[in-house]
Amino acid sequence: MNPDAMVAVVHTYVEAFGQARLDRIVSLFARDASVEDPVGTEPIRGIEAIKAFYQTAMSNSTTLKLEGPIRVASDYAAFPFRVSADADGRKVAVDVIDTFRFNEDHKIVEMRAYFGPLNFQQG
Amino acid sequence: MNPDAMVAVVHTYVEAFGQARLDRIVSLFARDASVEDPVGTEPIRGIEAIKAFYQTAMSNSTTLKLEGPIRVASDYAAFPFRVSADADGRKVAVDVIDTFRFNEDHKIVEMRAYFGPLNFQQG
Repeated sequence: MNPDAMVAVVHTYVEAFGQARLDRIVSLFARDASVEDPVGTEPIRGIEAIKAFYQTAMSNSTTLKLEGPIRVASDYAAFPFRVSADADGRKVAVDVIDTFRFNEDHKIVEMRAYFGPLNFQQG
Repeated sequence: MNPDAMVAVVHTYVEAFGQARLDRIVSLFARDASVEDPVGTEPIRGIEAIKAFYQTAMSNSTTLKLEGPIRVASDYAAFPFRVSADADGRKVAVDVIDTFRFNEDHKIVEMRAYFGPLNFQQG
């Protein structure tokens, strides 16, 4: 596993999300990947379900901004960021930490998003 | 599960670590808890092994500083922080993200620490 390659995937994810480049986001995941967003909900499984999930997630002019260094441990990356979006004309922000687990091709096989009601801010 | 109680445990953990209050740290864990530090290594299991782990971890005037909001999702807390320590007279710092999973008594049942070689800084 190459830590720099994992860091590069995180940067691509953050950029592509802000540009609403759905295919670019989906290309970062393995076909059998799971997405648990937020943690505690039933994970979404498989690339088609993941594509539908991100299509919805990107529909509110959503941008991500890294809020600190990307931590890389073994086959995982973890990173703090802030999500900003327009919801019905109001700006909202959410503080999130994501973990990505990677396979040997540096594709994401497991994504988990840590946030809850305490982490919503009125922008 | 009470999100505010989980946040309080994280603050206690950060403070008690900096004060080298071993018993206070250990009191935050369930008896059968596991600690995977860093992620990718074999987890330590059980309160006695956890006590020995923190005794070693605290031996270098180690302090923790939160570097952003504590994220709370379901029965998990995740938080970014920086560890600073003296190692053989040199200051070192490591950027880490921890996740804590809690039981219904708000004791930590699983701790995982995300960091690796990319996250070490010379202070």
